[in-house]
Amino acid sequence: MSDPFFHPVSGFELPRFAGIPTFMRLPFVPPGHERFSDVQVGLIGVPWDSGTTNRPGPRHGPRQMRDASTMIRAQHPVSGIRPFEQAACADLGDVAINPADIQDSMARITAFYSAAMAAGIRPLTVGGDHLTSLPVLRALAANGPLGMIHFDSHTDLYHSYFNGQMYTHGTPFRRAVEEGLLDPKRVIQIGIRCSQYDSEDLDFARANGIRIVSIEEFHARGPEDVMAEARQIVGQRDTYVSYDIDFVDPAFAPGTGTPEVGGPNAYQALQVVRGLSGVRIAGADVVEVSPPFDPSGGTAYLAVTVMFELLCQMV
Amino acid sequence: MSDPFFHPVSGFELPRFAGIPTFMRLPFVPPGHERFSDVQVGLIGVPWDSGTTNRPGPRHGPRQMRDASTMIRAQHPVSGIRPFEQAACADLGDVAINPADIQDSMARITAFYSAAMAAGIRPLTVGGDHLTSLPVLRALAANGPLGMIHFDSHTDLYHSYFNGQMYTHGTPFRRAVEEGLLDPKRVIQIGIRCSQYDSEDLDFARANGIRIVSIEEFHARGPEDVMAEARQIVGQRDTYVSYDIDFVDPAFAPGTGTPEVGGPNAYQALQVVRGLSGVRIAGADVVEVSPPFDPSGGTAYLAVTVMFELLCQMV
Amino acid sequence: MSDPFFHPVSGFELPRFAGIPTFMRLPFVPPGHERFSDVQVGLIGVPWDSGTTNRPGPRHGPRQMRDASTMIRAQHPVSGIRPFEQAACADLGDVAINPADIQDSMARITAFYSAAMAAGIRPLTVGGDHLTSLPVLRALAANGPLGMIHFDSHTDLYHSYFNGQMYTHGTPFRRAVEEGLLDPKRVIQIGIRCSQYDSEDLDFARANGIRIVSIEEFHARGPEDVMAEARQIVGQRDTYVSYDIDFVDPAFAPGTGTPEVGGPNAYQALQVVRGLSGVRIAGADVVEVSPPFDPSGGTAYLAVTVMFELLCQMV
Amino acid sequence: MSDPFFHPVSGFELPRFAGIPTFMRLPFVPPGHERFSDVQVGLIGVPWDSGTTNRPGPRHGPRQMRDASTMIRAQHPVSGIRPFEQAACADLGDVAINPADIQDSMARITAFYSAAMAAGIRPLTVGGDHLTSLPVLRALAANGPLGMIHFDSHTDLYHSYFNGQMYTHGTPFRRAVEEGLLDPKRVIQIGIRCSQYDSEDLDFARANGIRIVSIEEFHARGPEDVMAEARQIVGQRDTYVSYDIDFVDPAFAPGTGTPEVGGPNAYQALQVVRGLSGVRIAGADVVEVSPPFDPSGGTAYLAVTVMFELLCQMV
Amino acid sequence: MSDPFFHPVSGFELPRFAGIPTFMRLPFVPPGHERFSDVQVGLIGVPWDSGTTNRPGPRHGPRQMRDASTMIRAQHPVSGIRPFEQAACADLGDVAINPADIQDSMARITAFYSAAMAAGIRPLTVGGDHLTSLPVLRALAANGPLGMIHFDSHTDLYHSYFNGQMYTHGTPFRRAVEEGLLDPKRVIQIGIRCSQYDSEDLDFARANGIRIVSIEEFHARGPEDVMAEARQIVGQRDTYVSYDIDFVDPAFAPGTGTPEVGGPNAYQALQVVRGLSGVRIAGADVVEVSPPFDPSGGTAYLAVTVMFELLCQMV
Amino acid sequence: MSDPFFHPVSGFELPRFAGIPTFMRLPFVPPGHERFSDVQVGLIGVPWDSGTTNRPGPRHGPRQMRDASTMIRAQHPVSGIRPFEQAACADLGDVAINPADIQDSMARITAFYSAAMAAGIRPLTVGGDHLTSLPVLRALAANGPLGMIHFDSHTDLYHSYFNGQMYTHGTPFRRAVEEGLLDPKRVIQIGIRCSQYDSEDLDFARANGIRIVSIEEFHARGPEDVMAEARQIVGQRDTYVSYDIDFVDPAFAPGTGTPEVGGPNAYQALQVVRGLSGVRIAGADVVEVSPPFDPSGGTAYLAVTVMFELLCQMV
Repeated sequence: MSDPFFHPVSGFELPRFAGIPTFMRLPFVPPGHERFSDVQVGLIGVPWDSGTTNRPGPRHGPRQMRDASTMIRAQHPVSGIRPFEQAACADLGDVAINPADIQDSMARITAFYSAAMAAGIRPLTVGGDHLTSLPVLRALAANGPLGMIHFDSHTDLYHSYFNGQMYTHGTPFRRAVEEGLLDPKRVIQIGIRCSQYDSEDLDFARANGIRIVSIEEFHARGPEDVMAEARQIVGQRDTYVSYDIDFVDPAFAPGTGTPEVGGPNAYQALQVVRGLSGVRIAGADVVEVSPPFDPSGGTAYLAVTVMFELLCQMV
Repeated sequence: MSDPFFHPVSGFELPRFAGIPTFMRLPFVPPGHERFSDVQVGLIGVPWDSGTTNRPGPRHGPRQMRDASTMIRAQHPVSGIRPFEQAACADLGDVAINPADIQDSMARITAFYSAAMAAGIRPLTVGGDHLTSLPVLRALAANGPLGMIHFDSHTDLYHSYFNGQMYTHGTPFRRAVEEGLLDPKRVIQIGIRCSQYDSEDLDFARANGIRIVSIEEFHARGPEDVMAEARQIVGQRDTYVSYDIDFVDPAFAPGTGTPEVGGPNAYQALQVVRGLSGVRIAGADVVEVSPPFDPSGGTAYLAVTVMFELLCQMV
Repeated sequence: MSDPFFHPVSGFELPRFAGIPTFMRLPFVPPGHERFSDVQVGLIGVPWDSGTTNRPGPRHGPRQMRDASTMIRAQHPVSGIRPFEQAACADLGDVAINPADIQDSMARITAFYSAAMAAGIRPLTVGGDHLTSLPVLRALAANGPLGMIHFDSHTDLYHSYFNGQMYTHGTPFRRAVEEGLLDPKRVIQIGIRCSQYDSEDLDFARANGIRIVSIEEFHARGPEDVMAEARQIVGQRDTYVSYDIDFVDPAFAPGTGTPEVGGPNAYQALQVVRGLSGVRIAGADVVEVSPPFDPSGGTAYLAVTVMFELLCQMV
Repeated sequence: MSDPFFHPVSGFELPRFAGIPTFMRLPFVPPGHERFSDVQVGLIGVPWDSGTTNRPGPRHGPRQMRDASTMIRAQHPVSGIRPFEQAACADLGDVAINPADIQDSMARITAFYSAAMAAGIRPLTVGGDHLTSLPVLRALAANGPLGMIHFDSHTDLYHSYFNGQMYTHGTPFRRAVEEGLLDPKRVIQIGIRCSQYDSEDLDFARANGIRIVSIEEFHARGPEDVMAEARQIVGQRDTYVSYDIDFVDPAFAPGTGTPEVGGPNAYQALQVVRGLSGVRIAGADVVEVSPPFDPSGGTAYLAVTVMFELLCQMV
Repeated sequence: MSDPFFHPVSGFELPRFAGIPTFMRLPFVPPGHERFSDVQVGLIGVPWDSGTTNRPGPRHGPRQMRDASTMIRAQHPVSGIRPFEQAACADLGDVAINPADIQDSMARITAFYSAAMAAGIRPLTVGGDHLTSLPVLRALAANGPLGMIHFDSHTDLYHSYFNGQMYTHGTPFRRAVEEGLLDPKRVIQIGIRCSQYDSEDLDFARANGIRIVSIEEFHARGPEDVMAEARQIVGQRDTYVSYDIDFVDPAFAPGTGTPEVGGPNAYQALQVVRGLSGVRIAGADVVEVSPPFDPSGGTAYLAVTVMFELLCQMV
Repeated sequence: MSDPFFHPVSGFELPRFAGIPTFMRLPFVPPGHERFSDVQVGLIGVPWDSGTTNRPGPRHGPRQMRDASTMIRAQHPVSGIRPFEQAACADLGDVAINPADIQDSMARITAFYSAAMAAGIRPLTVGGDHLTSLPVLRALAANGPLGMIHFDSHTDLYHSYFNGQMYTHGTPFRRAVEEGLLDPKRVIQIGIRCSQYDSEDLDFARANGIRIVSIEEFHARGPEDVMAEARQIVGQRDTYVSYDIDFVDPAFAPGTGTPEVGGPNAYQALQVVRGLSGVRIAGADVVEVSPPFDPSGGTAYLAVTVMFELLCQMV
């Protein structure tokens, strides 16, 4: 039987709009807490947007998503999975990033995740902009490159921006491949669309064996077929799942910095996560939720539902 | 020929943004009005949200929907039905609920609807949260249990909330079955989704013969097939139609208290109502429209379009 | 030297937009916590609006104010007081109110505050609508009636609403006087304005010796003079401070359910709290902050600044 | 004793957020209604913004102000006046303007007001942009020029705009003087500010004897002193009161098309109306409330409070 | 090789949120500019909404769309077309319409477009309400009637509004057919839906051979099949493309004056433009974008993506 | 007579909502333009917020302020100054900052301003966060330290943030004093308020002779008296004026990252600029306008009015 310490607060005891908002109303178990090493899946916030080249805001993502996540209940509606009973889940808090120094922040993020790894905790991250994934991968791929299933409207494979900027939210996976954190032949990017500067990112993908599923292909084939291919590409080895909320059409997820029209709807946004069934998820993130551009809060609520679906796949 | 008294004000006489907003610009015929007994379909507001366990706001629904409903014109685009010429329709006003007393409010609502029933008026209700349906059903089912076609993302079949609260917006149809207002074997719930506390509501449905169509089944089969089954379940006897706006995906209907992602789109939201063709509708409601969470007003406009579709089915 | 356990998280360690939001980034010390009895001033949320007769929303107040309160720093700009070093302050969490039962909720609130009183904790409350003050006073005035300095645009002294409703946000202080929780001769209400139903509340005030300072008098005399009178009225005995955010002009505090135009500006809103210097504050509250009507969040930020001023007076 | 037919619906019978919104919950008595000739003060909407040269929106003003006006109660807080008992007040509905033809609309407006005049009704108008005042004055000044007390940040005295446009919201009072509807020597404009195209309007004012009180003078002298002068200028003859909501500082009234910073606060916005005491008000208007630019609705609520103050002066 | 003068500013040189916003960051080449006659495709704003019979706002469309259009990059994601290298594109500025005179404005618009035509420039227009199309067609159809592919939820074929108003945003194409600007047999209208006043517009269409594809037919057949028919109807002769943003479902495009629920999603909104391949586009417009009703700006961003798709078809 | 090239577009030729928005509708004269050296006052945007330690957004300031600035007309309402006729004013465009590198951005800013200085242009800057002032001062103080009149709610004199970050929006003037760009004895900071981390900034001010006028002192003495002192402190030597929009109370200026309640109202916000009369202004800036937190756009409009007042002082 599961440990009551790790059970979320029930909406029948304390109304869901009440109480201090931790992720999914889980206990707050920061590094140093006496139960830290008992955690199996750690929900971690990275309130950071220094890599943003366009509209900032994801630094506010973790707090808004903690708030929205108090709407999440105990049981998955289709599978019946009760994740909080199947694994010890906890809110590990936010990484103390440094908003004025990208390199320092990346070092702090990697250190935080390395500590979680050392304690045997699998991380489910709430960004932050997409650069967040890079320092996380530096911790998670310590023992060798991972595969990745990546939902996004952008490849984030650019070489650099502006005056040779190597670290922005448009470059994390280029760096991750270069640093040996990802095995490009086990990487699939799904949902890619939008007008482009040029084909430099696509050329890199092609040259390295990264599989790109454009939104046109996604809509033509449907989520189930695409996810079958994704499972095949990553196979039965450790895989990272990175979910940029701008994968979803901006009508469903307006609260993001660089929306691109014509994406999946909210139902498909969940279906693709259900299609991860059987994948060995070493860690996952949901990034680019930007509260200042989300006046009705719907983006955050979609994003926490995606988190819940991810969690049900991870436990 | 139809009675001009019951014709709505035309947008060619008075611009649609002008004038005192009654539902669909119909005449205001409250109880006591000399034409009350001539009304055939009565549009009634129930500005009430005391049953809300989460985010309040539906008490403001009727007023916002009156405002939005001035955009409705005279003729259905597909069937060509001109409902205001086929039946005497009127705005009966709002029930004078008591915002600080649930039992008193329910008594007032039932009394209002009983008076309408006595005058031979079929009601089309604008909520209000979903608890509204219970006191309405108490009036409508005076002569025996009704069938029900229920569009929603939640079953609203829970036994109780918090400290044994029996009357909330999560319990109306449990009560209605218990009180013999609904025949559970003639009840179908369509669009159910979202993470759950537990399976208590589903167990009740199964034990009593209530048919639940999950959103997964809805998306797989499509609106037409599902509605064919719905028509079969309720058959040719009196049926209530209850339409919780959170049935629709929150991208299309953000203005509601407990949105659940992954629902039908707006076109499907209308298609299901068109699928009511031939059903004997004893009354209908559209509930849970919450203006404070609807910054651009789109939810109300969708909801009044649903109302217009319902009205075309009722006349 | 002060106990580091009770120090808020510094914005130099963790950026102010980061981290799980407790009130003013203080430790979370709910009833039952091992440090509970060491707390001197307890910040308590009452997420409740069942007494609201107009626009609901204050149930969301505590969460939004926790979020906004992470902007509060350590030191008062004028007095130099560092309250978190002068007294052990903590976030005691939210009272688990029952959103569907007013009497049950009041009992729960009184029980929570009685426990805090028993532990020697002085409460600083975040509402909730103004009915919140009544069950709080039932705990605080256990040993005899208190004086009260009350900032508001409404007297909240009505006898009843609707069908004889005795417990709404328009009646708490009528009840409190009737129940002997307040000594009406030591009560002053400041900022009263707005069109009235009738003079029933003013008649009650006059008959019982409650001093009412209308907004016209407030603007004519200025905050300092009015507060001198307030201090004199309550004298050197235990006094409750109740601060309804609709005291302030709605340009400065739009996020409230029943705004009344023509109130004090934000500077005066702080000045009156500074005018409490020397008052023996048995407890205080800030109520009627309604996030759904506060699109830019400014009301919450003003309210937490008022809280900080109150806290500096209480330590 | 006053006629109950003309009493507004009480908030104790029907909550203020409920019911079909007429102005101040008064009866709807359009031209042709059997009680039309019994009305003494008629509240009339003119949903029109064809004269707007900048941001449109005031066509939506009457509806939003009807909604907000349900917050108005029965009695003035300072004078104790109960206007609905002192005069038969009613909502006469909206003028059916033609949104695509300025001349046709002006003719319709003048006709509506002439009918009200013929029935002995004094009008209190809700605009609409400021051009609204011109066709209203054409009806009201049928028997000779009126004086005017005009609150605004703009003089609205320009000769023409663009390609010689004579009828815009920047020209109504130039036309009114030219047409002999206003006696310029009995006209005072209060609150004038903002950067200017040139001095053409001020030159016209000076040449014709119109008194302009700049915002600098207003702030230096204060509302009471300025209003004493205003009363003297208009004297004891019939006077029109025109209140452009952009008179007030945009922090208090953001919902308007051409805001100008640095105006009076909300308290002063009411004080100037109280300063009309003793003026013979032939009619009054509140114009330029633009709901699309008023996300929190505060402008409308301020405007209806101004209306209530005006009404208390008119009865 | 293409002329660098006509290249847009790159996001790698100047961040996309920076700089003075011209359409798609193209050079500003107004009439009279020395490079005017070198322009091949001219992007023109018509900031005008005098034809609006419902909610105004499209006068603000061009500016908001210039702002949003700085997000557009250089290359089409599917076809790889780089339109700014294939044709000399420029922002020709806004037509100086007269907001208070419909006829004067139409004359100014026609004159501007005639000048562009004379310089050999094909126009891509940003409205403005839909009446904009009429004066544009007067210039473009100088040499004979055009075909038209028209995306909309309304036919805009009404005879007149109100008191016989012939020129509103509900009548442009009735006038265009009457004036011989459009060949009705080469006109197709796609996406038509919404409740109707009557069938007068449909009768006109039928009588003149205009093909109407209702939204029901659109959803049943899909974009590709419908567009194949559209291409066949207009054939290989000059064709105008008119894209009313209310063609798209309001969840994806809330920022418009007369939204109608149940339309295409954003992906389909782009697909139909891609289906124009091979059509001889004499000019195109995107109209009815209304910023005041678009709090998160998503409508404008969708609209500029549609513009980019149109541009890729035009070059 | 003044050069027509430098005249803004009139609202009588092109409506103020129309056209490509440059600052105050002035000509766009970027570096390299043939008229660059003829410019006397250059309006420059710095779309940059990398120094923000709290809520980001000012990178979007210049674009929103260009939009709002099209409302500015030609003539000052009090002084009658027509600045665009008295000096050649132009929009020099935005500095191409690098959003991912603080040092690179500062170098780019300084280079841009040095070029303007070399051309004899006095700059009026639109930020950007307050760190913007530092690289601007590096260019302007090339020949020796300047005095400064600084309007703000924060001193921005902190030594460092987080892990020793020296360059944030809380440190620019500490750096400027250290680098010899400002003469601290000729610096006055006006409006300082808000809870503090500690007294480190005040200690630095005191030790170096910087004069701080707290908001309490400001409200007690009034704008005119404070500005008389300010003029005396800076004397008749070159002075920089830095205007952080959070100087103003957040009810008047909500669109900023770190609002502090209790500041001046909008009228006082202009009065202090008028109090600069006679000061030798070497350059000025308006910073920290953050559009994502300004839903109704009022902050930008206030800020451009402040800019216009500054411009009238500079010409």
